[in-house]
Amino acid sequence: MQNFGNAITYTAIAVFAITGVLAGLRKEADIFSLLVFGLVTALGGGTIRDMILSVPVFWVNDLNYIWVAAGGALLAFFVYRLIFQAQQLLLYLDAVGVALFTIQAIDKVLGLGYAPLIALIMGIITGTGGGLVRDVITDRPTLFMTRDLYATPILLGSLVYLGLLYFAPGFELSWLVSMLLIFGFRAAAIYWDLSMPGWLTARAES
Amino acid sequence: MQNFGNAITYTAIAVFAITGVLAGLRKEADIFSLLVFGLVTALGGGTIRDMILSVPVFWVNDLNYIWVAAGGALLAFFVYRLIFQAQQLLLYLDAVGVALFTIQAIDKVLGLGYAPLIALIMGIITGTGGGLVRDVITDRPTLFMTRDLYATPILLGSLVYLGLLYFAPGFELSWLVSMLLIFGFRAAAIYWDLSMPGWLTARAES
Amino acid sequence: MQNFGNAITYTAIAVFAITGVLAGLRKEADIFSLLVFGLVTALGGGTIRDMILSVPVFWVNDLNYIWVAAGGALLAFFVYRLIFQAQQLLLYLDAVGVALFTIQAIDKVLGLGYAPLIALIMGIITGTGGGLVRDVITDRPTLFMTRDLYATPILLGSLVYLGLLYFAPGFELSWLVSMLLIFGFRAAAIYWDLSMPGWLTARAES
Repeated sequence: MQNFGNAITYTAIAVFAITGVLAGLRKEADIFSLLVFGLVTALGGGTIRDMILSVPVFWVNDLNYIWVAAGGALLAFFVYRLIFQAQQLLLYLDAVGVALFTIQAIDKVLGLGYAPLIALIMGIITGTGGGLVRDVITDRPTLFMTRDLYATPILLGSLVYLGLLYFAPGFELSWLVSMLLIFGFRAAAIYWDLSMPGWLTARAES
Repeated sequence: MQNFGNAITYTAIAVFAITGVLAGLRKEADIFSLLVFGLVTALGGGTIRDMILSVPVFWVNDLNYIWVAAGGALLAFFVYRLIFQAQQLLLYLDAVGVALFTIQAIDKVLGLGYAPLIALIMGIITGTGGGLVRDVITDRPTLFMTRDLYATPILLGSLVYLGLLYFAPGFELSWLVSMLLIFGFRAAAIYWDLSMPGWLTARAES
Repeated sequence: MQNFGNAITYTAIAVFAITGVLAGLRKEADIFSLLVFGLVTALGGGTIRDMILSVPVFWVNDLNYIWVAAGGALLAFFVYRLIFQAQQLLLYLDAVGVALFTIQAIDKVLGLGYAPLIALIMGIITGTGGGLVRDVITDRPTLFMTRDLYATPILLGSLVYLGLLYFAPGFELSWLVSMLLIFGFRAAAIYWDLSMPGWLTARAES
């Protein structure tokens, strides 16, 4: 799982960096700004997680994360016309990345001895934090302000993962099942354009 | 004071969570996003304070804070029509919370051995940080960009509290007097719609 | 260099605080909000750097930084009509500050034993972080979303500084040369209104 996990991690980081570049392209932007957007999106969620936990931020002692994120961002800069035509594909890749980031974060935080509730929150922060900072610095409505089903699959998959760890501690594929659940639910939401049922949605009638 | 303080703390956290949900209701939002807004508003200020001080973030080792914030947010989701009619009441409750958060933070930071100026700054960060992050992720003008008298009562009450600790160290009700000052000043600002006098206000004439 | 460096540091902090106040003046704002903008702009970049590195934040144990930032902000409040007429001068002073902050941060991070790539990233975070937070809380498009050549001189000067440290370790004026490069490049960009050449710029044609 370790090597497989690493391969997906780096893919996920590159994909996140690409989404950061695409977010910056709404307006004319230079290569350096786009590089910043890519790095922030790819590394932001895990950075916030590690800062809250007071552990060394994951990329300061392993430069590969930075190189992969920078590579993804530069690639996106040079072929963005191509990527724009494949945006649908990118949404699915992003869903893979979110699923992986979330489950990995839960493992990391449980490994540090924290309660499952803290692991759950850190999983969500890691999965969504990078995209959140990306939206703030590129002046877009944040992902939480869209009707998109983005965070709900993460929450659900995280709960299932924690449940499997607790009720089926011997089951070695818990991480895979939970990742597939997050990815599958998110992919279905993209494909069928799903949104929350009305009774779980609110709006001020002002 | 301890038990009384705890009771107010949890009330303040619940109230802050409710204001986070209401801020998200400008647009249609699903239950999970609103939960995130509630948690961020209730726990954000103290989280930033603890991250700057490099001490463990207050909620990672005491889950009650999270449960109370989540409870407040969920309550707000289910009865938001009711709450909207009581928004005026909520402003006053928010003022209670801000007063308590600020004074508690000053105590915590002084207890860690920092200078009063640092305690003052951390008090203000704790009192306003959660609302600031709330405004950023819900795409609203931040509370510092309104003419509202919001931060001034906090600054004034904090200065009075530090003054009392220094000049009247035996006086056991310093915290209560200072909290009442912050609350009272803020309540007066809400009730009479007070704003800063012109000579303490600036505007670029461009 | 130490005393000279300190003198420039405090100048830079005061200048950054002034730019924070000016950013808040687009709308009517009271003195306290403007003070917050000034402090955040002056101290924000270094604060984020120190939080990521898990070292004590630089201003919690040296109050001078806070006094200088607050002094700059208050000065800006009382003479802002004057400053508005000298905005061009301020841009150049800001360029001095950015150059100094960046090179100092690189020194600090290398001194902590981190890789040059981490020092480079921390230099950029320190040079641009305060302005970024300023733009977010005053609801302006962030400095990365303008066509301005702002971050590129920082990146270039940082690379030159790291190169000099590596290839000319005996050369004692590396810091000065690199600072002058950052300042000169930025000043030229201001004076001639330079922006990135088209092939290093992208824009979504949607």
